[in-house]
Amino acid sequence: MSRDGPQIGVVGATGAVGRVTVALLHERGYTNVRAFASSRSAGSRIGTLEVELASPETLGAGDLDVCFFSVGTSASRELVPVAADAGAVCVDKSAAYRLDDGVPLVVPEVNGGRALEHRGIVANPNCCSIPLTMALAPLRDAAGLRSVRVATYQSASGAGAQAIERLRGETPDEHDLRMDWTLDGAELDEESKIRDETRKILELPELPVSATCVRVPVLVGHAEAVWVETEQPLAPADAERILSSAAGLCYERFPTPGKAMGTDEVLVGRVRTDAASGNGLAFFLACDNLRKGAALNAIQIAELVLPIRAAA
Amino acid sequence: MSRDGPQIGVVGATGAVGRVTVALLHERGYTNVRAFASSRSAGSRIGTLEVELASPETLGAGDLDVCFFSVGTSASRELVPVAADAGAVCVDKSAAYRLDDGVPLVVPEVNGGRALEHRGIVANPNCCSIPLTMALAPLRDAAGLRSVRVATYQSASGAGAQAIERLRGETPDEHDLRMDWTLDGAELDEESKIRDETRKILELPELPVSATCVRVPVLVGHAEAVWVETEQPLAPADAERILSSAAGLCYERFPTPGKAMGTDEVLVGRVRTDAASGNGLAFFLACDNLRKGAALNAIQIAELVLPIRAAA
Repeated sequence: MSRDGPQIGVVGATGAVGRVTVALLHERGYTNVRAFASSRSAGSRIGTLEVELASPETLGAGDLDVCFFSVGTSASRELVPVAADAGAVCVDKSAAYRLDDGVPLVVPEVNGGRALEHRGIVANPNCCSIPLTMALAPLRDAAGLRSVRVATYQSASGAGAQAIERLRGETPDEHDLRMDWTLDGAELDEESKIRDETRKILELPELPVSATCVRVPVLVGHAEAVWVETEQPLAPADAERILSSAAGLCYERFPTPGKAMGTDEVLVGRVRTDAASGNGLAFFLACDNLRKGAALNAIQIAELVLPIRAAA
Repeated sequence: MSRDGPQIGVVGATGAVGRVTVALLHERGYTNVRAFASSRSAGSRIGTLEVELASPETLGAGDLDVCFFSVGTSASRELVPVAADAGAVCVDKSAAYRLDDGVPLVVPEVNGGRALEHRGIVANPNCCSIPLTMALAPLRDAAGLRSVRVATYQSASGAGAQAIERLRGETPDEHDLRMDWTLDGAELDEESKIRDETRKILELPELPVSATCVRVPVLVGHAEAVWVETEQPLAPADAERILSSAAGLCYERFPTPGKAMGTDEVLVGRVRTDAASGNGLAFFLACDNLRKGAALNAIQIAELVLPIRAAA
């Protein structure tokens, strides 16, 4: 690591999440940031940065301390190991490595310590799994978790820059809900991801998690309606107090994507009893899916890992 | 009832649901339709109909066989009894009478027989309760119901014509989710309505029902993500078969408001196991909230009741 801070690469820098990653890195005072993208975008500029070609040669040159990947799963599979082998800590936002043994899947407020076990790759969870586990972890600690059901309200930006443009081109008469993911058996892959990632992050490998994922015509910000059953009784007022004081969460009476947009916190509210089960609670959350749901979480992971590397 | 069909009044005819009521009545061949509205709209026209003032005098004159009310709760409380006392069967779409003993709350496919027990007033359920109970009733009959959890995706038109205009005036950058109902304790009144009405319609007064209601920036069409626990085991394939063949339901792989708009059926799909409970199922539905969720259901109620009155 150079004396003037880490050398940082952002791969997929021209995408919706990549752009926010670059902006947040500058906000946080990092100066040695390089942008990488595929041949379609290489040579263009993001602010003052010239976009370099993301290739095994450029990413494997050994001059990066940390590298953020916001690219598709297949591109991550090709490029992440090259950058990791060349010495960069890779924070990968794709689903490529999230469930691999030996790859920590990290939400800093929930299981930050796991990041230090990395072997060159740390996986960043799905944009819905991050806020969900941030709300579930303090409830797990207080009362144990027996089951989770979640209905999502996911914004267009979660589907990338093209989906943003498509929504901007629509009239309200054309707006519809979408379930634009791939079927993974009876579920959408997005729904399977939420279950598998929640189990790994919370270290509850048997936790029943049933998700229904829906895309709504909102540009930025994901929301989730959540039902949990706890092992021990937990009064709504106590749950609200616990959630209000948990790291990274902020109590809001009616959380919405609009209120969450541009903030670093996950907004949690509407905590109440679910009488359908003995120890049932319902609540609602909203989160900026490009920030805490993606770019911010990834940067926070890197900030956990970098001091250790600097000391090594 | 005159020889050329019933004399029909539509009160609140200039609102979002009132306009659809008038259009559907014409579609179905009813010719003696009169439109009523408040003093703000009286004197205007809906198609060829001149809008008359809705008042105790006009509605109490005794010349209506059936009268549809799509007005606020307080206006319904004032005007419905007047029209009913004057001999009209009143189908009221407000929440004013839905939970009253002696007022049937009717979804024709679910509890149509109850309509015949009316004493002048039949209540039309909430726009979310109608499609929900249509999907729940066949599951109740097949396997019994232990609990229901539902997250709604409700369109702007459910909040009336002004909400439609507000959404039409927004840019995608301004779109947000809303929970624009009144708090009724820890719940929104919309959420309490869904529980109370579902219990009454299904005749399961103790059924646990937990709803989270959310308004999405879609113009027309409500959707619902539903989790049910049944008393007896019910395989997803069996549940899908039962739902596919139930009255008023139509199987659709990915139900959305856009697909439901303009149709009379409730679209149901995404039936799968919810492993969080022993006998758990998850599914998704979508429905045209102005048609089956409101105007169409009300007309179907009247059609159940009118032949009886004609024979009387």
